[in-house]
Amino acid sequence: MSAYACRNREELVQEAQKMQSRFDALRNKNLKLDMSRGKPSKAQLDIVNDLLTVLDDPTVCNLNGNDCRNYGDLAGLQCAREFWAEVLGCKSSQTFVGGNASLSLMHDLIARGYTHGLVNSPRPWCREEKLKFLCPVPGYDRHFRITETYGFEMITVPMTPDGPDMDVVEELVEDPAVKGIWCVPKYSNPQGYVYSDETIRRFANLKPAAPDFVIMWDNAYCVHEFEGEFAPFKDIISLCAEAGRPNMVYEFASTSKLTFPGAGISVIASSEENIAYWSKLAGVQNISYDKINQLRHVLYLKDKAHTLELMKKHAEILQPKFRMVLKMLRKELTNKGIAHWHHPVGGYFVCVAAMPGTAKRTWELCKQLGVTLTPAGATHPYGIDPEDSMMRIAPSYPPIEELEAAMEVFCVSLKIAALEKYLGEKLV
Amino acid sequence: MSAYACRNREELVQEAQKMQSRFDALRNKNLKLDMSRGKPSKAQLDIVNDLLTVLDDPTVCNLNGNDCRNYGDLAGLQCAREFWAEVLGCKSSQTFVGGNASLSLMHDLIARGYTHGLVNSPRPWCREEKLKFLCPVPGYDRHFRITETYGFEMITVPMTPDGPDMDVVEELVEDPAVKGIWCVPKYSNPQGYVYSDETIRRFANLKPAAPDFVIMWDNAYCVHEFEGEFAPFKDIISLCAEAGRPNMVYEFASTSKLTFPGAGISVIASSEENIAYWSKLAGVQNISYDKINQLRHVLYLKDKAHTLELMKKHAEILQPKFRMVLKMLRKELTNKGIAHWHHPVGGYFVCVAAMPGTAKRTWELCKQLGVTLTPAGATHPYGIDPEDSMMRIAPSYPPIEELEAAMEVFCVSLKIAALEKYLGEKLV
Repeated sequence: MSAYACRNREELVQEAQKMQSRFDALRNKNLKLDMSRGKPSKAQLDIVNDLLTVLDDPTVCNLNGNDCRNYGDLAGLQCAREFWAEVLGCKSSQTFVGGNASLSLMHDLIARGYTHGLVNSPRPWCREEKLKFLCPVPGYDRHFRITETYGFEMITVPMTPDGPDMDVVEELVEDPAVKGIWCVPKYSNPQGYVYSDETIRRFANLKPAAPDFVIMWDNAYCVHEFEGEFAPFKDIISLCAEAGRPNMVYEFASTSKLTFPGAGISVIASSEENIAYWSKLAGVQNISYDKINQLRHVLYLKDKAHTLELMKKHAEILQPKFRMVLKMLRKELTNKGIAHWHHPVGGYFVCVAAMPGTAKRTWELCKQLGVTLTPAGATHPYGIDPEDSMMRIAPSYPPIEELEAAMEVFCVSLKIAALEKYLGEKLV
Repeated sequence: MSAYACRNREELVQEAQKMQSRFDALRNKNLKLDMSRGKPSKAQLDIVNDLLTVLDDPTVCNLNGNDCRNYGDLAGLQCAREFWAEVLGCKSSQTFVGGNASLSLMHDLIARGYTHGLVNSPRPWCREEKLKFLCPVPGYDRHFRITETYGFEMITVPMTPDGPDMDVVEELVEDPAVKGIWCVPKYSNPQGYVYSDETIRRFANLKPAAPDFVIMWDNAYCVHEFEGEFAPFKDIISLCAEAGRPNMVYEFASTSKLTFPGAGISVIASSEENIAYWSKLAGVQNISYDKINQLRHVLYLKDKAHTLELMKKHAEILQPKFRMVLKMLRKELTNKGIAHWHHPVGGYFVCVAAMPGTAKRTWELCKQLGVTLTPAGATHPYGIDPEDSMMRIAPSYPPIEELEAAMEVFCVSLKIAALEKYLGEKLV
């Protein structure tokens, strides 16, 4: 049970033989499992099926004489804005309710910065000599793809259990080419860290050289506890305002992991000045987002308290899966000195930091056994993890029986990859 | 009943007195009517209320093992792609089904041309010295706002009853700075003209200097006849392919005037190469569009034949309104020599070409009487109609009783504006 690093060659070969035989046994199971993305499971979708029928009376669409079956209300239905304001702890006038994806809102905000600039931009970003963006790592591949697509040089910032290393952030924002930073402040993707109050305070008090520096505050998991009670969270918008930079942050959220992924509603929250500017440009792109779906969601989710009740039901399904993942990691990998991980209490992922140089090989071995993981490297800009270490596990989608098998595949593969490093030869 | 131009001053003063007294009588009615946008009426929304409940069984969301309640299918559900392919007369592989607004797809395509270029672009449009776009006039203000927002110089092309003046178009596309043209080929906005087969043929055979010239083929009214039977229409995509420029055209459509405006589904149709390129960039913006709403619409609309039946119901509501508008125009304005117009058989508008220099004044006078029209000038790039002549009437929204009053307001206002020109003085 000692660390691989402390074992002699003979002991490592013995361990390798054990793992090889387990690997062969797993191969014979002919598994076909996907743990690559944070997809809710069928059981989670089934608990929200009533969403399909909650809006069955067209007269309900008449909101104070304003028929939401027709064009209008670019910034969203007032009731939807109020719903999000309560959930995020901001004012409804600071919200803009969008369509089925907060990812689209984030993309479109960066795109508008590129083509037109943001509120305090001296010029559109496409007219700048050089563009840089801060990317805490490990992070979310879809964030990084947006800034990559718009030609930003992506600068990595190390994550700590309290959030991005703020000493590094504060230094990097002194470069006027640095236009922003990606953040998942609560249950960070993939580690599940929660930014500390001190980290949030330091974010709000940033003094970036770029006047249009933007904090992309993707609060994707704002109500997504699967262990314990809802954890209140500071409102970054008012903190930035208090610190004198009200336009520095845009917050994003969606119902994708509350109701049906990709068929829900999303929100931008920011200063009223930012929302007005955004609305002006959004009004060229759209007359209004899908207000019937906004109403459907407000009727179904009702308010924050009712939404938290629903999240308890999701937690009932998710909690055993995360516990299973963590149990398997503990059982198989503790004290081997080849991997470490954090125990999240919310969000959608467990992140395993494998021994450097073994993540890609682990991914390949899992693939050979029929288990698809998020590609190694996806947690880093350009898909390149220089340490080849970070692995993202997404336990939500498979049923729990399959998850146990998949985790055995993962742990055996990871151990083989580590043993190959120590022994200097391929084992399978 | 003779043309104002043929009357002497005394006769004009008499006519002015009549109009002044009608104007006063109309003022006393304290109207408050909106004919500014092509909004469907409440009666039209009510005929599609079953859309709200057509998808009430979650098991229907399971499409060959692919659960549309979850993430995936960026290009849209196969059944939705097939629906649009049948309606537009193209292949399903040539379609990409989007969210609630074809306007967003159009905006995003131009935006992607600006930031990344299109398939045959030598460079992104934002790196070009000069950008120009062709705008047939009168046209649709929301089209023009997109190209204005992205810094295009907008070049007007006169409309004819057969579509844009193709002699002018063919000459203008010899300029390599000209990157595209806006088209509403069937029941053009606002005149209701249908492009002739010859016009369509000449579009498909354009040989623009810019290799990435794009025909923005906004087929907004593809099934929107309100008089007579569905009029078949040539498929521009295959015509462009036959002419050797398969990537030159993007076609757009949506259900906004089939079901609930702003809460439906939209489509881009183009060559498979264009769809692949678009999908690559759209995949940075979105994981998928709202597939539940796509399924809801396919279940409700079923296929082209069933959709045409629904459009007959819309026509039953729209036809009397258009007939009323045309009757009032005929009754009030025929033979005065101060306005002319076309009798459309589909679409959402009637366009009145008033005597030059009287459109803005007519708009102001209508406003005084409580009737809001589309602002004069909106039919032209930058909101400037150099002739100050074109007025767009949108008869769909008001109930027919109100429409009659609104049309009296319009005709009296237009006559007063013309009389003011002739008499050289304000009359009200």
